[in-house]
Amino acid sequence: MSYAKRFRRSLLDGKLELILEAHNGMSARIVEEAGFSAIWASGLSIASALGVRDCNEASWSQIVEVAQSIHDAVSIPILFDGDSGFGNFNNVRHVVKRLSHYGIAGISLEDKLFPKMNSFIAGAQALSSVDEYCGKIKAAQDSKCDCNFTVIARTEALIAGLGVEAALKRAECYHEAGADGIFIHSKAVDGLDVLEFGRQWGKRSPLVVAPTTYMDTPLALLEQAGVSIYICANHMMRASIHAMRKVAGQIRKDNGISAIDSDISSLEEVFSLLDYDELKAAERIYGQ
Amino acid sequence: MSYAKRFRRSLLDGKLELILEAHNGMSARIVEEAGFSAIWASGLSIASALGVRDCNEASWSQIVEVAQSIHDAVSIPILFDGDSGFGNFNNVRHVVKRLSHYGIAGISLEDKLFPKMNSFIAGAQALSSVDEYCGKIKAAQDSKCDCNFTVIARTEALIAGLGVEAALKRAECYHEAGADGIFIHSKAVDGLDVLEFGRQWGKRSPLVVAPTTYMDTPLALLEQAGVSIYICANHMMRASIHAMRKVAGQIRKDNGISAIDSDISSLEEVFSLLDYDELKAAERIYGQ
Amino acid sequence: MSYAKRFRRSLLDGKLELILEAHNGMSARIVEEAGFSAIWASGLSIASALGVRDCNEASWSQIVEVAQSIHDAVSIPILFDGDSGFGNFNNVRHVVKRLSHYGIAGISLEDKLFPKMNSFIAGAQALSSVDEYCGKIKAAQDSKCDCNFTVIARTEALIAGLGVEAALKRAECYHEAGADGIFIHSKAVDGLDVLEFGRQWGKRSPLVVAPTTYMDTPLALLEQAGVSIYICANHMMRASIHAMRKVAGQIRKDNGISAIDSDISSLEEVFSLLDYDELKAAERIYGQ
Amino acid sequence: MSYAKRFRRSLLDGKLELILEAHNGMSARIVEEAGFSAIWASGLSIASALGVRDCNEASWSQIVEVAQSIHDAVSIPILFDGDSGFGNFNNVRHVVKRLSHYGIAGISLEDKLFPKMNSFIAGAQALSSVDEYCGKIKAAQDSKCDCNFTVIARTEALIAGLGVEAALKRAECYHEAGADGIFIHSKAVDGLDVLEFGRQWGKRSPLVVAPTTYMDTPLALLEQAGVSIYICANHMMRASIHAMRKVAGQIRKDNGISAIDSDISSLEEVFSLLDYDELKAAERIYGQ
Repeated sequence: MSYAKRFRRSLLDGKLELILEAHNGMSARIVEEAGFSAIWASGLSIASALGVRDCNEASWSQIVEVAQSIHDAVSIPILFDGDSGFGNFNNVRHVVKRLSHYGIAGISLEDKLFPKMNSFIAGAQALSSVDEYCGKIKAAQDSKCDCNFTVIARTEALIAGLGVEAALKRAECYHEAGADGIFIHSKAVDGLDVLEFGRQWGKRSPLVVAPTTYMDTPLALLEQAGVSIYICANHMMRASIHAMRKVAGQIRKDNGISAIDSDISSLEEVFSLLDYDELKAAERIYGQ
Repeated sequence: MSYAKRFRRSLLDGKLELILEAHNGMSARIVEEAGFSAIWASGLSIASALGVRDCNEASWSQIVEVAQSIHDAVSIPILFDGDSGFGNFNNVRHVVKRLSHYGIAGISLEDKLFPKMNSFIAGAQALSSVDEYCGKIKAAQDSKCDCNFTVIARTEALIAGLGVEAALKRAECYHEAGADGIFIHSKAVDGLDVLEFGRQWGKRSPLVVAPTTYMDTPLALLEQAGVSIYICANHMMRASIHAMRKVAGQIRKDNGISAIDSDISSLEEVFSLLDYDELKAAERIYGQ
Repeated sequence: MSYAKRFRRSLLDGKLELILEAHNGMSARIVEEAGFSAIWASGLSIASALGVRDCNEASWSQIVEVAQSIHDAVSIPILFDGDSGFGNFNNVRHVVKRLSHYGIAGISLEDKLFPKMNSFIAGAQALSSVDEYCGKIKAAQDSKCDCNFTVIARTEALIAGLGVEAALKRAECYHEAGADGIFIHSKAVDGLDVLEFGRQWGKRSPLVVAPTTYMDTPLALLEQAGVSIYICANHMMRASIHAMRKVAGQIRKDNGISAIDSDISSLEEVFSLLDYDELKAAERIYGQ
Repeated sequence: MSYAKRFRRSLLDGKLELILEAHNGMSARIVEEAGFSAIWASGLSIASALGVRDCNEASWSQIVEVAQSIHDAVSIPILFDGDSGFGNFNNVRHVVKRLSHYGIAGISLEDKLFPKMNSFIAGAQALSSVDEYCGKIKAAQDSKCDCNFTVIARTEALIAGLGVEAALKRAECYHEAGADGIFIHSKAVDGLDVLEFGRQWGKRSPLVVAPTTYMDTPLALLEQAGVSIYICANHMMRASIHAMRKVAGQIRKDNGISAIDSDISSLEEVFSLLDYDELKAAERIYGQ
């Protein structure tokens, strides 16, 4: 079964499932190892890892290259964060062709302009017109080379402060344009807007959420509201920054690496994560 | 003062200095923020981050692209881990041209074959012939486009179990071939071989070490032995794996992101690390 | 003297100079070999060579990578076709940083939207607002890392059918915003609009033109009108397509390669163009 | 039917077929347009186009990126020139994974060392040991993700001057190691060594040839000798160089572009080759 098919099934099965962010091959390996069934190739996290900001400073081809690296590193489906599509419908087509050719499972496209700004940054978050955005959804569906490749429409209506009614109206249009699911994004800390959206949406299609700010909302409530994919959207990157800041600061303070050695993975753990043993085995088969 | 010149001064000033590994723009920002004066663009760490093994699975151009990202993200010099040169002397020339054009401060080249295997992996570590390797050092020096770009010769003689005498013989040849410094690598846990090497070397040129295994050797002893650059070679990557494994496991166990939220960097910290405020300020100058 | 300085001098010396398009390292070598003093890294030609259309189907990083290849292949300055800047002022900053770090001599930025459409394609050619575009020019100037890196403002006012007066108004604003020269683009077949523009502009700053359609306009007239850089904008790519179509068709028709062999470069000519002899010489110095 | 399956059928059908080189998306379009059934993604031509030499100066990932561009641009199978495998068996595995994931039809691997030197360059052409090379063939077969992906073993025994017997011995080993076909390469001008090889090989598996030097050998003789794929290996690149040299020289001489305009493709032909009309049609469907 292809990755795209596996992800599509999981989207459509009516059960809520957590998927976790990865931003490179290494973090992807850890997501897989921990038992998650799919990876969120997060725009924010990939940008951060590259050392740039989440406002399309990285090019689409740089991000697709990261997605290919992630794909090469694991055996679970990848949902690709396609931001606002990297331009117009035509740019969407190019990215979807590359992704679906390479075996990525699906893409999420948000109804913002290009360049987009990260949703958690305060200030104006201008939305795309509904027509222009629906063109992107159709273009994505028509240019994928694997019929199971999933196109998720992400509305930023709540992020832009337009309210649940506006979000529903947009979602309805996106659904009609052919979206396989609706990603309803919010930065509310209580998640009530998302729950209300879900109630009114009535499971017309599967919902996707990223409860970064409303992390305390019970999963059961979200599942009742029709949420199928629960994205832990940026936690690996944030774990990584936290740990590296601590270790860098401590090495600097100690002027040495001895004290922190037990707080970090051993080289053996690194070699195990990247499966150096497989290489040894392969050498026995194929020669040095 | 160019990055290459800054790094060269630090190499030649007779004082031991710690530099810390980075494997992408994000970790590089943290190294700079912690106050280190230079970055070690580690082959092992960059490979691991990409999700591949440290045996030249990543291409030289993929790694040079990472080095460019690191360079774009910080304002401190970068010493690039050039493995065994990615082929022969001619491949060395291409990589050195790209790096020195782009403002990378220097390269370390090791006297192993291509593809190389990570030095901490048990088993045969075949060395290059001295002649072939000296050709690479000369080629590197002759193809750099910035006279301050530094070429460090790294001998793996101790890693290969050949002993201090063999290492000294090789180092002498590399020194004569034009190396700006000698990187004497070891996986001893006491570091005595490195200290002995340093005593006999007698400061003929600056020494570089990566005391991953002999982390308890006092800095004063290493400095007396002529060590100028002390590379903390892979600790950011290892910190990152450790933290991400913990967080991924906990999210999986909790089936939620609430419990781990305080153990990871906040979004505000992410935005601060990548300097989103600079963008807001730029918008005021250049318009939206 | 840096490439940027050489190009700046040529722009400012008051004499008209022809520069020729290249779209990869190979065509760049031929431009240099023919004796041209600089290269136009054409957006249309690079896109065509990549097999995509000139409407930002290729990402900025793919095009910058081509520019780096061109830079590695020759020893003459490169003027980079920066389209409409690949997004907003912030995208401009990233591209200019990369280009100027790597030694590219300058960039041309046009006052169209993103994604742009090739100027010779009939239909609406919407222009950017003057304010937004001036922000890009300022951003480009402020983010270059070499003070001699040149920023050329290209107005598409004539392409958009707005007339000479509108073009002059825009050019004046761009000049005040800090552009080092004005690229006045036209698809007239007589070039009279460009000559008229030049007369009224009165050499306030150097002019750049690409007379693809008005190829019969005498150079002396253009020089009198203040033109300093005359771009032969896409002729290498068009020569290449013409020849390859002929040869492919003939091989297909003949079902063989014998008849066309004398119409194409010999392998010896290929090896000479790429300087395989230099490698032989280097082998003697650095060993095999 | 997948590209890999189409190419495999053509390899196995017992009929000789000409395939033509392409080195980027543009030349690939022309190959397809002329009616060829498959593309040879030539190492020499891709290297030349990038402005580097055919001795692994370009990295494997740079070349794979070109192959992806070619794949994106056409709808016919691509046989990828994998040189000597870019390192050892493990490097072969990585390249084959990427290629077969992306839909490339097959790879040719030659029995030379890394870095390799172009076969037409005089001088030592050292061959790989048979054992090491057979490990690469097995590794390629075991790591492809599409069972129809084709692995062609190219022996350089004739190029290295070892004679037909040595070539047959090697071919037999490669056949047993699992190669789908044998690429028997020669730089003889009469092609007699290839015909002799074919006679003795006795159609044990399909043969592939690149008769660059023995272009006058009749196709019927080659077909009788068991040749299934006849590669026109570098003619598009050579056509391109020839034409560009002429045009660049003429522009330089004329100090103008008028005289050469009728000798090169018109802009309309460029736009037709890259199918700008498709974009106009898509705009009507998906909106601007």
